[in-house]
Amino acid sequence: MTYVQGNPLVCGKPLEECLRIIEQFHGWKAPGLVLGLFMVDLARELIDPRTEADAVVETRHCLPDAIQLFTPCTIGNGWMKILDWDKFALTLYDRHTRDGFRVWVDLEKMRRFPKLYQWYMRLVPKNAIPLDGLLYVILTAGRQVLSSSSVTMSRYHGRIKKTDVNICPVCNEAFAANQDRICLACKGDGYYEIRHRMGVSVARN
Amino acid sequence: MTYVQGNPLVCGKPLEECLRIIEQFHGWKAPGLVLGLFMVDLARELIDPRTEADAVVETRHCLPDAIQLFTPCTIGNGWMKILDWDKFALTLYDRHTRDGFRVWVDLEKMRRFPKLYQWYMRLVPKNAIPLDGLLYVILTAGRQVLSSSSVTMSRYHGRIKKTDVNICPVCNEAFAANQDRICLACKGDGYYEIRHRMGVSVARN
Repeated sequence: MTYVQGNPLVCGKPLEECLRIIEQFHGWKAPGLVLGLFMVDLARELIDPRTEADAVVETRHCLPDAIQLFTPCTIGNGWMKILDWDKFALTLYDRHTRDGFRVWVDLEKMRRFPKLYQWYMRLVPKNAIPLDGLLYVILTAGRQVLSSSSVTMSRYHGRIKKTDVNICPVCNEAFAANQDRICLACKGDGYYEIRHRMGVSVARN
Repeated sequence: MTYVQGNPLVCGKPLEECLRIIEQFHGWKAPGLVLGLFMVDLARELIDPRTEADAVVETRHCLPDAIQLFTPCTIGNGWMKILDWDKFALTLYDRHTRDGFRVWVDLEKMRRFPKLYQWYMRLVPKNAIPLDGLLYVILTAGRQVLSSSSVTMSRYHGRIKKTDVNICPVCNEAFAANQDRICLACKGDGYYEIRHRMGVSVARN
């Protein structure tokens, strides 16, 4: 399906390719992630894509994947931090100067796209708006539903350093030395019951 | 550089391709992520790659990216949960039966690979072991440094549902209704100072 005429560049790539990348990584073309694509595109442009920018994202739903796919920042390399605030907003910043740009969904602007607003504000049941129609509105709206401001980071701007390592006397696994003598799982925060412990049947390279 | 003879399949793909995927997403062939590749490979095989498995990962360093790259689980689609315990371990599980497999680094097994053990336990300065040498050991060791057990999930096995949406009366942005009347940022947890707020200069699709 072709959504938009002309296949414009977004995040430095043709839009159709961006949508393919989203689907492959995320499992489907989630509307929030497609909206996030335009948010990352705007933030990248504002900070200059050549800046080695770190990221903060204010929700764990969808938006972190837009950052991971269209910037060098991932959760595993430590350049992206997730705040579990359920706000659809992100900041890209230069960690040396602490200056950057925050981009968010502007509800006043979004009201001009009623279907999108209803979906975003969860005013209608999840499946009441067909996916293709919703994606069409998002791709038509693009940056028109976003606002941005230049910001200076006051928290969360540093990289998280790894600490020394302890060995837990209960499970014999390594864990961060800044916790306690016993690891969190063995202290009772574990999330699993062991059915049975296995050796590794086939040693393999 | 070719590390291993024969380019074996790992996570269903030729090893050299896995290493390229890692470098492209994560920025470099981080040793923790290459070790993580073998952990995901083992967990996938134990649970059967055809099972639609969710993931829990016990550190935010490196390992989440191995899960995001070599399973369908990502942080943004909600199929992977991150516990910030700094333990190098992961669980893949069937969220319907709650049964799955936990894979972890087994320190006793790792002692047979002294360079790897020293790096993993942070017993030597970060740059004391050249990257290529370390990667070679990891690729040689593969699963030989891992252990696994079959587990039943007792926590964190459900998908996280989105709540209703409130509009913050201070910033006029949407946020989760299960928080408070005012969003966390406006209540004082914000991480940025606004330099100036901008309109969107060019409306674009």
